[in-house]
Amino acid sequence: MPTTSDTPSSHPPTTREIRLAARPVGEPTPADFELAVTDLPPLTAGQLLVRNTWMSVEPYMRGRMDDAESYIAPFELGGPLEGGAVGEVVASRADAVPVGATVVHFLGWRDHAVVEAAAATVVDPDVAPVQAHLGVLGTPGLTAWLALTETAPVRRGDVVWVSSAAGAVGSVAGQYARQLGAAQVIGSAGGPAKVERLADLGYDTGIDHKAGPLDKQLAQAAPDGIDVYVDAVGGDHLEAAIGALRIGGRVAVIGAIGGYNATAPVPGPTNLYEVAKKQLTVRGLLVTDHLHRFPDYHATVGPWLADGTVRHVETVVDGLDQAPAALIGLLRGAGVGKMLVRLG
Amino acid sequence: MPTTSDTPSSHPPTTREIRLAARPVGEPTPADFELAVTDLPPLTAGQLLVRNTWMSVEPYMRGRMDDAESYIAPFELGGPLEGGAVGEVVASRADAVPVGATVVHFLGWRDHAVVEAAAATVVDPDVAPVQAHLGVLGTPGLTAWLALTETAPVRRGDVVWVSSAAGAVGSVAGQYARQLGAAQVIGSAGGPAKVERLADLGYDTGIDHKAGPLDKQLAQAAPDGIDVYVDAVGGDHLEAAIGALRIGGRVAVIGAIGGYNATAPVPGPTNLYEVAKKQLTVRGLLVTDHLHRFPDYHATVGPWLADGTVRHVETVVDGLDQAPAALIGLLRGAGVGKMLVRLG
Repeated sequence: MPTTSDTPSSHPPTTREIRLAARPVGEPTPADFELAVTDLPPLTAGQLLVRNTWMSVEPYMRGRMDDAESYIAPFELGGPLEGGAVGEVVASRADAVPVGATVVHFLGWRDHAVVEAAAATVVDPDVAPVQAHLGVLGTPGLTAWLALTETAPVRRGDVVWVSSAAGAVGSVAGQYARQLGAAQVIGSAGGPAKVERLADLGYDTGIDHKAGPLDKQLAQAAPDGIDVYVDAVGGDHLEAAIGALRIGGRVAVIGAIGGYNATAPVPGPTNLYEVAKKQLTVRGLLVTDHLHRFPDYHATVGPWLADGTVRHVETVVDGLDQAPAALIGLLRGAGVGKMLVRLG
Repeated sequence: MPTTSDTPSSHPPTTREIRLAARPVGEPTPADFELAVTDLPPLTAGQLLVRNTWMSVEPYMRGRMDDAESYIAPFELGGPLEGGAVGEVVASRADAVPVGATVVHFLGWRDHAVVEAAAATVVDPDVAPVQAHLGVLGTPGLTAWLALTETAPVRRGDVVWVSSAAGAVGSVAGQYARQLGAAQVIGSAGGPAKVERLADLGYDTGIDHKAGPLDKQLAQAAPDGIDVYVDAVGGDHLEAAIGALRIGGRVAVIGAIGGYNATAPVPGPTNLYEVAKKQLTVRGLLVTDHLHRFPDYHATVGPWLADGTVRHVETVVDGLDQAPAALIGLLRGAGVGKMLVRLG
């Protein structure tokens, strides 16, 4: 037996990784990404070598591809991309995390990652499929939960509208809104294929935002107005919501996928004066500020997932080399549920 | 002695009133108003005849001149305008309100008004000048107070920006922000004459929004950003605030004077995605929903007014016939403090 678990057999000399080859203008293209091979340095004290098995593809990554100041640093040109991942510990120089453990961490977009043990979370692979920690048990699920319980709390009997309802957050938010006692849960998505899936995701009513003006469709779906709106889009969606919200209505702004690829500023809603008239509350949620809530969150939703009250829906793409296409597709609206890349 | 106080001498047969002659397109003009004489009907049980002494001119009235559904009914074409007023009871058929009482009510824009006693509030003319009940002790003052304590609460050490700082709400809000422990209070107004007055109104820093881009001026005034913004303007002001707000920042939307005269929709802020990134809260305040808070509010600010901690600033126009010009001027940015018309 070796005295360290960082044996040559478990520690390959190199790994593949996806790098940012160019900063996209507007929509990213395959040429903006590069698959490269890089050396894997030996572990230093406190580090893990993780063989990634799943990685997450998320809309917010588009923002990090620009060279712009934000709440999170931009990706370096020529450097590897990063993102949520699940993997198996194949070598460890941290006593707390043994070889064989399954960990969630933030160094996806590569086959193997050298991860600080302090930046990895060990998860139990028997509770749920491990990739659920990138979806319903991960930041998308926590986003949906906090949006509907704290940012824009749902009250019993409310009419709730969730945008991007077929997406990673939306595919969970509809189910949570129902759990929280909403009288009607409306979901919107782009195109009939996605809208058709909404009924499986806890939605009473589906709206195809490509099929006609949102305000008219919303008025038809909820003639007496809505109480809560979860905004992942901005622009015309937020404007329609502000128009439809009843007095005291609440909006959780969790993203603006409509603007991620934009090269010019996306016009804001023209009806913000209604925020005063109807005493609306529009509040932002940045889930990375709330990661300490995971234990409570898992305690609440774990049982729902186990007994089937809440379903995990995912779209799986196979192979690291397909990850750029998965991100490009996601930004174009591809996929239902959590978009994942299965590795190795 | 007559058995009723509704004697012929105290009850003139007619009154002058200002009517809506035409619905304005864009900015109102004098031709949209008409000064007319109308009969004063005899009082029925529960009614008061009030000789108005002061009336209020308010930006939100512009919205009621349009034939559009809102939180408050539009003015009728050919009918009298309405608005806050203070007056003396000259005849009464309500036991609770004697002749000679000073009352605040909502039937301004006329010399005499027949007012339901239930819709009038008796005020003590010895506590403060009676017209203060249309300003610092009225809805503008309550708006400022609730905006800074509940809608977008100021915390000790905050940097606060108030738009329309020389207006009825703004002339009080700066003083309240200071009372609430703000480290820096920034006020914006249009033109050097108004900006010069801001120092008297509790503002540390004045910004002239006509003198250059708001975002640049704001960055100069508060290089580390702001925590609270009181929005009476919308559009470019709200966009600049969202850009300057720090993480967890708060916005109270109390109106959108920038859009009242607009004939086309005023574009909204293009940076609303920052609401998520910075976890901002944008919340509307409609003061008419909080009128039950007046007793508490008066108990808090009454002493400040009495001892000079808080000042009441007003612009006074004389004569009912001048009221339309006062409203037109107000919508153009005329006046400092509460805009009032002195009657009779």
